[in-house]
Amino acid sequence: MPIFLSTTDAGFEQDFISFLGMKREDAPEVDDVVAAIIADVRARGDQAVIDYTAKFDRLELTPETLCFSPEEIEAECAKVSPEDAKALTLAAERIRAYHARQMPQDQSWTDPEGAMLGWRWTPVSAAGLYVPGGLASYPSSVLMNAVPARVAGVERLVIACPTPGGAVNPLVIFAARLAGVDKIWRIGGAQAIAALAYGTETIQPVDKITGPGNAFVAAAKRRVFGKVGIDMIAGPSEILVIADSSADPDWVALDMLSQAEHDASAQAILVTPDAAYAQQVVAVLEKRLESLERREIAAASWRDNGAVIITRDLEEAAALSNRVAPEHLEICTEDPEAVSARITHAGAIFLGQWTPEAIGDYIGGPNHVLPTARSARFSSGLSTLEFLKRSTIAKMSPGALRDIGPAAERLAISESLEAHGLSVRARLDRLNQG
Amino acid sequence: MPIFLSTTDAGFEQDFISFLGMKREDAPEVDDVVAAIIADVRARGDQAVIDYTAKFDRLELTPETLCFSPEEIEAECAKVSPEDAKALTLAAERIRAYHARQMPQDQSWTDPEGAMLGWRWTPVSAAGLYVPGGLASYPSSVLMNAVPARVAGVERLVIACPTPGGAVNPLVIFAARLAGVDKIWRIGGAQAIAALAYGTETIQPVDKITGPGNAFVAAAKRRVFGKVGIDMIAGPSEILVIADSSADPDWVALDMLSQAEHDASAQAILVTPDAAYAQQVVAVLEKRLESLERREIAAASWRDNGAVIITRDLEEAAALSNRVAPEHLEICTEDPEAVSARITHAGAIFLGQWTPEAIGDYIGGPNHVLPTARSARFSSGLSTLEFLKRSTIAKMSPGALRDIGPAAERLAISESLEAHGLSVRARLDRLNQG
Repeated sequence: MPIFLSTTDAGFEQDFISFLGMKREDAPEVDDVVAAIIADVRARGDQAVIDYTAKFDRLELTPETLCFSPEEIEAECAKVSPEDAKALTLAAERIRAYHARQMPQDQSWTDPEGAMLGWRWTPVSAAGLYVPGGLASYPSSVLMNAVPARVAGVERLVIACPTPGGAVNPLVIFAARLAGVDKIWRIGGAQAIAALAYGTETIQPVDKITGPGNAFVAAAKRRVFGKVGIDMIAGPSEILVIADSSADPDWVALDMLSQAEHDASAQAILVTPDAAYAQQVVAVLEKRLESLERREIAAASWRDNGAVIITRDLEEAAALSNRVAPEHLEICTEDPEAVSARITHAGAIFLGQWTPEAIGDYIGGPNHVLPTARSARFSSGLSTLEFLKRSTIAKMSPGALRDIGPAAERLAISESLEAHGLSVRARLDRLNQG
Repeated sequence: MPIFLSTTDAGFEQDFISFLGMKREDAPEVDDVVAAIIADVRARGDQAVIDYTAKFDRLELTPETLCFSPEEIEAECAKVSPEDAKALTLAAERIRAYHARQMPQDQSWTDPEGAMLGWRWTPVSAAGLYVPGGLASYPSSVLMNAVPARVAGVERLVIACPTPGGAVNPLVIFAARLAGVDKIWRIGGAQAIAALAYGTETIQPVDKITGPGNAFVAAAKRRVFGKVGIDMIAGPSEILVIADSSADPDWVALDMLSQAEHDASAQAILVTPDAAYAQQVVAVLEKRLESLERREIAAASWRDNGAVIITRDLEEAAALSNRVAPEHLEICTEDPEAVSARITHAGAIFLGQWTPEAIGDYIGGPNHVLPTARSARFSSGLSTLEFLKRSTIAKMSPGALRDIGPAAERLAISESLEAHGLSVRARLDRLNQG
């Protein structure tokens, strides 16, 4: 049974807190296995990667076949229908246009003391994108990771994608080519993350690893964090819909199901001030559920994690949404902008009932790699910035050093860092001589 | 003996690669201990924090004394000399002015299809700053963490700072008050990180934890990452100076020592095309070393981790520096801007010999929390952005959905996500009826 709460209920606050703390995913403890795989890849390089691929993906590789050849890539791309190719091309263009606007500006200015200050953005040199194999091998995720990297100016861009038993999704290969990926390694799991982070004889290491994956991939990313950059550790995802009766209940129900169908641990939440409307949405949702291809997954998600919350008004709905900090927030109300203005924590906001969340998954332009499991409280979705880093810049004039140097010297002394102080004092002495 | 390399040596490339791979820090394996402490704080709350503080900091606290009272804060601030107060106030102002310029702009535009797209930045609600106790309890680090948080608009800002045996650094308390910190908890170690991440009866949890710390703090931050945001896992720090003979060898030597005096695992590297000049710098450095208060630490750093690299020219010096990706890069050459233009990876760049690195530690304006241990290849120093996150925004018009919706539906079908496709199709059908 999904959870039904109303803010006017006596025990609401306590019920809502336990709802927020609800654990939706039992991540298996794979940390020791992953540590051993990483150590082995560091010690044995290619051969370790080849051995694990034989074991986990039932695929025999050699150093030469670790990577898709240009001919293999062409052959896979040729399998893609013109309609799919056209849709992916449109998606890539729209994602590129959106992410190009995220390119930050360098800054430089001179302050009143004569110090030149600023910063400069530069791209990460090499990035590796992890793409899961099997059923969750999504071409849209290839675009969402690779296009921002290319927009940022990443020089060398590679993909690791396992091909269990040799099975390849041609759309993934097509999306990789479309986004300008340089190499596709047919490896997965912790062994792929280890190879990308530390390199092997054949596989060059990268500086940053992004992309979703299973528990092994997540644990490996957490372990190599520091040696390379990573994007985030993705958890089970969620949608929260704030709606009023102006929104078609069928559309809202379908949007909720489009989250629920991902995964039994996904979560769909309806927040509305209109209890009768909520009943309508639930009725349509349960009817639609019956005929859905992925009805088992979606039904489990709805039963175990679904929720309906009735609020006094839309203001209260926005406040509750902020406490959830949902990955996806749909605002299907008469005046969605008014509600949106009250939103402080959400990964992606979809305004108005003509903006189903699925548009954002594929073709809207914004990224679909978003902070899950309430992490929108402190983090953002994937963006061009993820593939850039900033060097701060400072240049003192002699006059600026004369003005602010003594304070630096004073603070160095107060922290008992003598050489810090002396490095300023030696210059101040020269100025005082001159 | 520090390492001496020259790019014209036969074995240079191999020597440089092993230099890059050199391990400077043996981080103790504390992960199991830290996991147990975190679990205990989650289970027993205040009492666990109080017990660990008694054990590790030899300090008996109660729930009431976990936090500095306003009177205690006043009393500590009263101990600060007017000169130190003035220097800290100037530093805070300059850091604030620099970080205010980092506030990013919201964006919103309508594309040719009629889709409104954009994003909006919002602050993290609550942040916790870790400040080490004892010798490395630096007021400058309080400012470098707290000021950007305040500039970003963080509502609730707290500090955790252990006070071993009850010892407090009044300058830390003064800096916290100056930066507008709301609460100072006198706790440290993994227990402080656990309390900030999960909360206790007395300590409210935060959304983001930043700040340096020992191996226990680092391991705890890595463990709570995901539950809350963290800044980075700091490693041993380094300075690389690119110099030519236009720079005073004494100044360059002092700048290198100001890194070396931090920590035996710190690293100072000189890169210059002028071998005779390098000898001068080394001679002055070793002379200066003799009389330094922290000579034991600085000498160990120089002996075990110091390096001098002679290059063919300044272009080659810049290229090698990029491979090191130093935390601090000083360019003490006749035309520092020309060298700087070739720099692609560095945490902070200091231009010209009038800009000692110590200026950046205290008062320049840029942040001194910077990516260490070669992580400037993929990450940036602390900034205002660290305390903000971005919500993407999309609003389709019916016309925009008619234009791009079919491609989204197509891609949903290709990924076998039926409800995704239906959520678009239901709306397209309405448009086609209308």
